[in-house]
Amino acid sequence: MYIIMVYDIKEKRVAKILKIARKYLNWVQNSVLEGELTNSQFRRLKFEIKEKLNVEEDFVIYFILKNSSLLKKEIEGTPKVENTNFL
Amino acid sequence: MYIIMVYDIKEKRVAKILKIARKYLNWVQNSVLEGELTNSQFRRLKFEIKEKLNVEEDFVIYFILKNSSLLKKEIEGTPKVENTNFL
Repeated sequence: MYIIMVYDIKEKRVAKILKIARKYLNWVQNSVLEGELTNSQFRRLKFEIKEKLNVEEDFVIYFILKNSSLLKKEIEGTPKVENTNFL
Repeated sequence: MYIIMVYDIKEKRVAKILKIARKYLNWVQNSVLEGELTNSQFRRLKFEIKEKLNVEEDFVIYFILKNSSLLKKEIEGTPKVENTNFL
């Protein structure tokens, strides 16, 4: 399955959430990651994220597709470089 | 076609870009909108966004699917309320 993960996380938890997400997905831009995952990888990602999340303050959406062939991407402008001082 | 639009825009242009995007798509969270568009609506959205974009400083990705039935969504946490002082 292909996953696009977007999130809006309180500043104090962003680094931890990003660190987990980057184990499974590719960083695209601030608050957006994507990648191909197996069912079990996706379950583990969700479990690890949920452990760190404050469900009152934080918000995560997983857009799920059967596979990446169903998806086209169009890009405008200049891709951002990841802000690595979060790592 | 179903569109997920994510963007990373310089502060001074965010309000303008968001105002255009909201004419076509539904706000989901900061920097993320989604919705069903016809080909011509999508062309107009891209044209209007491109007119306001600084291609050196800004970045927009359109994830494009044939239709929303190909997409599942899973949500964790509390959806954000749109910061309307951008409008």
